[in-house]
Amino acid sequence: MTNYLIGIDGGGTSCRAAVASADGRILGRGKAGAANILTDPETALANIGEAARAAFMEAGLDPQGITAAKAIVGVAGHNVGDAVHYVKRRLPFAAADIESDGLIALQGALGNHDGAVAILGTGSIYILRQGETVSYVGGWGFTIGDHGSGARIGHALLQESLLAFDNIHEASAVTDSVLAEFNNEARDVVDFARLAKPGEFGRYAPRVFEGAAAGDPVAVRILKAAALTVDEALDVVVARGCERLCLLGGLAPLYRPWLADRHQALLVEAEADALTGSVAVAAQRFGTQARAGA
Amino acid sequence: MTNYLIGIDGGGTSCRAAVASADGRILGRGKAGAANILTDPETALANIGEAARAAFMEAGLDPQGITAAKAIVGVAGHNVGDAVHYVKRRLPFAAADIESDGLIALQGALGNHDGAVAILGTGSIYILRQGETVSYVGGWGFTIGDHGSGARIGHALLQESLLAFDNIHEASAVTDSVLAEFNNEARDVVDFARLAKPGEFGRYAPRVFEGAAAGDPVAVRILKAAALTVDEALDVVVARGCERLCLLGGLAPLYRPWLADRHQALLVEAEADALTGSVAVAAQRFGTQARAGA
Repeated sequence: MTNYLIGIDGGGTSCRAAVASADGRILGRGKAGAANILTDPETALANIGEAARAAFMEAGLDPQGITAAKAIVGVAGHNVGDAVHYVKRRLPFAAADIESDGLIALQGALGNHDGAVAILGTGSIYILRQGETVSYVGGWGFTIGDHGSGARIGHALLQESLLAFDNIHEASAVTDSVLAEFNNEARDVVDFARLAKPGEFGRYAPRVFEGAAAGDPVAVRILKAAALTVDEALDVVVARGCERLCLLGGLAPLYRPWLADRHQALLVEAEADALTGSVAVAAQRFGTQARAGA
Repeated sequence: MTNYLIGIDGGGTSCRAAVASADGRILGRGKAGAANILTDPETALANIGEAARAAFMEAGLDPQGITAAKAIVGVAGHNVGDAVHYVKRRLPFAAADIESDGLIALQGALGNHDGAVAILGTGSIYILRQGETVSYVGGWGFTIGDHGSGARIGHALLQESLLAFDNIHEASAVTDSVLAEFNNEARDVVDFARLAKPGEFGRYAPRVFEGAAAGDPVAVRILKAAALTVDEALDVVVARGCERLCLLGGLAPLYRPWLADRHQALLVEAEADALTGSVAVAAQRFGTQARAGA
């Protein structure tokens, strides 16, 4: 009987799966709904199974074969202990490990090279791999971390809009546009912000990048402060020996021109995506593919 | 029949009342539990009545007399429309207006002078009175405003502690003390912060003032940034013509030495407290006391 491998890239809006041969060659891909193991583990389990069966079907394989396969499941919230244990015991595979979405993204982006990824999306986190050692810098979520993230940039824009409303800070085209969206009612901005989730703040981040590109002084100030937090975190991974750096996440292409010159020379393009990364980890752990030296 | 006046200073932990003669002379005081009209209007109504009856009893008056009296009720959340209407209709007085806790604090602090108060506690807000015109600057709450407040200062300290944990920013005695309190587990800091209310962040603010006084570099940096936000807001009230400025709230005495020289010359001590202010507003509105010119 053939030993198939499964890679899962689970996210808050969708879950992707790939089935591969024991040497890591991808045979088929599938997709299903959200896989958030922290907030909705039952739905996550259902969608992980469905995406895996879809991948088997695309590969021309019997979808019931997933129960004999070994899988790497990359998900956000992997480090929240109880949810991981609960989900891991119930996964419909012969064997499986749950890994962070960041680690499988790093494996995809850097392949078997040492180096670091800066994941710059709604949140922000930095992951460094040196040989067998993986270390995390930053992250910690919107409330008290994720500096430079889209959520923090959007939050900063709303905050500057209120400061402009009060004439405490200068107004500009971007703060005017935010206030106009809320009918120039500061109270409406506050009511929105009080209930907004990180993703809702993050939807204002592109406006800051666009405004900064057009020279809007408030947008430039917000973005320089955000880019400084990214550069400071990158300094830490570089100090730990990182010589290869890949920017990932929705803000990665927007951020690149704003980062310090000292980091530009280290930047590389991603080799592959997180789904490919999850298959590669599966092949190293359960298959016949050894991880090459760095 | 004598027309008595009632002043109420309602807060999130207790509610104080004073009964006064029609010319505003205070005859007795009373106290009861919390009066938060936004989160618990029924309890607020009960405690406002209880505090008023206690004031009548201290004055040697029949507590049933409160139903014939006219009152000014100063409360936080006065500008949240529905709660104000609901509570106002149910107050046990012959007539009553609900005013912001800030406005009665201003009346108490400045008496009948024009000028502004900076209320620097768990939150922060600036209130300027010029003749009959009252204007508010800042405030807007912890999520997106209240710059320079105790909650924001405490939040900044927790944030800097995580940045120190990651070696992104320098560590110091104050960040070490925070991390030690959380057993040097960044995850524990995050778990606390995720659920913390503004008052819980605010409990870390005194540590920043103490650290800054002792020269702790991180505390000095946090406090200089916070004092800058206060100075910027004070610049706005000064630009609007304020020549008399009173710092109120728990952080007021701590902040004073950190504010810009240009504001030091405008600072005055509070003439009286918010309860006295609520009685004065009641005397102006319902009694025989006209508000003197500024």
